[in-house]
Amino acid sequence: MSTALTHLECSKCGARHDADIEQHLCSCGGPLLARYDLKRARVLLNASVLAQRPADLWRFRELLPVRDGQNVISLGERTTPIVPLSDGLLVKDESPLPTGSFKARGAAIGIARARELGVRDIALPTNGNAGAAWAAYAARAGMRAHVAIPAAAPSIHVRECTELGAEVRVVDGTIADAGKLVARWVASDGYYDASTLKEPYRIEGKKTLGFEIAEQFEWHLPDIVVYPTGGGVGLIGIHKAFEELRALGFMSNRTPRFVAVQSTGCAPLVRAWNERRTESVLWENPNTVAYGISVPKAIGDFIVLRILRETGGTAIAIPDDAIDEARRRIARGAGLLLCPEGAAAAAAADELRKSGWIHDGERVLMINTGSALKCL
Amino acid sequence: MSTALTHLECSKCGARHDADIEQHLCSCGGPLLARYDLKRARVLLNASVLAQRPADLWRFRELLPVRDGQNVISLGERTTPIVPLSDGLLVKDESPLPTGSFKARGAAIGIARARELGVRDIALPTNGNAGAAWAAYAARAGMRAHVAIPAAAPSIHVRECTELGAEVRVVDGTIADAGKLVARWVASDGYYDASTLKEPYRIEGKKTLGFEIAEQFEWHLPDIVVYPTGGGVGLIGIHKAFEELRALGFMSNRTPRFVAVQSTGCAPLVRAWNERRTESVLWENPNTVAYGISVPKAIGDFIVLRILRETGGTAIAIPDDAIDEARRRIARGAGLLLCPEGAAAAAAADELRKSGWIHDGERVLMINTGSALKCL
Repeated sequence: MSTALTHLECSKCGARHDADIEQHLCSCGGPLLARYDLKRARVLLNASVLAQRPADLWRFRELLPVRDGQNVISLGERTTPIVPLSDGLLVKDESPLPTGSFKARGAAIGIARARELGVRDIALPTNGNAGAAWAAYAARAGMRAHVAIPAAAPSIHVRECTELGAEVRVVDGTIADAGKLVARWVASDGYYDASTLKEPYRIEGKKTLGFEIAEQFEWHLPDIVVYPTGGGVGLIGIHKAFEELRALGFMSNRTPRFVAVQSTGCAPLVRAWNERRTESVLWENPNTVAYGISVPKAIGDFIVLRILRETGGTAIAIPDDAIDEARRRIARGAGLLLCPEGAAAAAAADELRKSGWIHDGERVLMINTGSALKCL
Repeated sequence: MSTALTHLECSKCGARHDADIEQHLCSCGGPLLARYDLKRARVLLNASVLAQRPADLWRFRELLPVRDGQNVISLGERTTPIVPLSDGLLVKDESPLPTGSFKARGAAIGIARARELGVRDIALPTNGNAGAAWAAYAARAGMRAHVAIPAAAPSIHVRECTELGAEVRVVDGTIADAGKLVARWVASDGYYDASTLKEPYRIEGKKTLGFEIAEQFEWHLPDIVVYPTGGGVGLIGIHKAFEELRALGFMSNRTPRFVAVQSTGCAPLVRAWNERRTESVLWENPNTVAYGISVPKAIGDFIVLRILRETGGTAIAIPDDAIDEARRRIARGAGLLLCPEGAAAAAAADELRKSGWIHDGERVLMINTGSALKCL
């Protein structure tokens, strides 16, 4: 596979870890990030090489963490489209991915790498889309998935996971409570902990979203990326992708300003941003229609907040009625049914344009993270 | 757009009709088929030209019926993947298309051409997926869709159509009854009749499924195409695509044997096939989990039966319990959740292999027509 993977690095303390054994968090508690020999990748990967490879996730293989092509698994991931709205907002629509959401990216790469490391059973908490994606790729790889999901999550996710052969436990509480159950499973049964940022490779899958955006913009990035933020792995992944491609000499302009969008019913990152903190505080009693971004306390919050600061970005919370309004307006006006999380991003772009934070003529890309069909 | 469209031809009596005015059925009652100057198309279109165009539907523009690129509309259609199962069965997975089904193909081209002809309001009966697709593309094109849907159809379709701004009427009866209501609307309100095969361009959109298959097989077609058949437009479209590409000199082998798959709860084509008839008889009291193929009497039945005969194909009916079994087996074993119609096709392939109709080593492609999420 010609991966340029060299090691793992702690995002908090900078400690170096071996990438070729199973790893989770650093002893300091920080998530680990995959690091590559970017000089070597630069020799192997350029725009004309890319253009000749099939349009699947693995065309970025030098910057993905799988060593042996035998471990690659696929359910038919292909580059997702960018659909323009009439007001110029560009929608990177992730709903065409397997299992209907962008979570397929993290699961495809995460499961492939877990297989390479000899894993048989994976466990994770989920608000729904991640569980379905990891269950599907686990089934494809001959592994077993164990999923904990809040009772308030859309019920279709439970059926998806079950149909795909996963063990599903419905939890009375939030995704944070589901996470505690997964921690117990991991301790008692030795399952591979595939929780957000508790293994280093989901984020590497999410990077492919950034790779595609860069490629679709012909290496001249949009001015602003608007991202509906729960755990924030997608935002971190897109940013990491841009930085790695920049090191490889692909980019011809600056990194976009990142906007983290949350719901007013669960906005720990927005609160931390407004209070100029470097970490968030657990949000009590989350409540929003945008269930996918209902994450009371994200383990990678400090990385998201750092990216917002470094890129001149911002964080914004949208009330549920504005989410519903954006969803209806765009469905009727543009023929595109967004998921609630995507609709939150669209509403945020609208509000930031009205407030003047987004200027006329700026190219704004938002992520529609999944299929509206799961929430209709 | 450099279309090579010349005229419309009746599939029953062969009469020639003007393609550049609104047309529906021939005066003899036969559906009209678009015809092209294939000699001219042959000059303009070849494999290397194709490879340089973006991977959207319009890369086959010479064989599509739109004259002015201004009328093209898009919701981000891209080539759908072919996902292999462990037994070698190849699944052309149509769920990544906009609105989650292969119906997007017919709607994308059908609405673009309707726009070109000056249409403002379209009407169609639907078991669900077609309604959602036509509603979405109509919204995108600034048209209004009027949809009639049986009460027994999965309820998510009603919500999809409504969210996308369509007028939706729920009908107590089958899609045949919904069709009668649409006929009344067309007569009283002058709506453009977009019912299956009652306008000539939906099938042209479905052709893109055949174009993609041919391209993905590098112009050396599979031995067998297994297609879950309701109205049969997809099967007719795939076959028409293969014939047109053959005339352009693309193909290096024979046309596949086509298999029309129905449910034992609604199998008018299978019954007609077994009785060696050239047309089907209305199926009374249809009842199946595979709602998308619950069509009691298809207007294009005689074309489907002709294609089965001409290609050495067959027709086969699958009971609901075998559909459910195939669905579960493939979800757990291959990580792929099929829609009920797709699961029927998979079960059919399995049965035809066991009976010896499919031989060892034959390349078998089945169509998964839409997203499983609509029926979970």
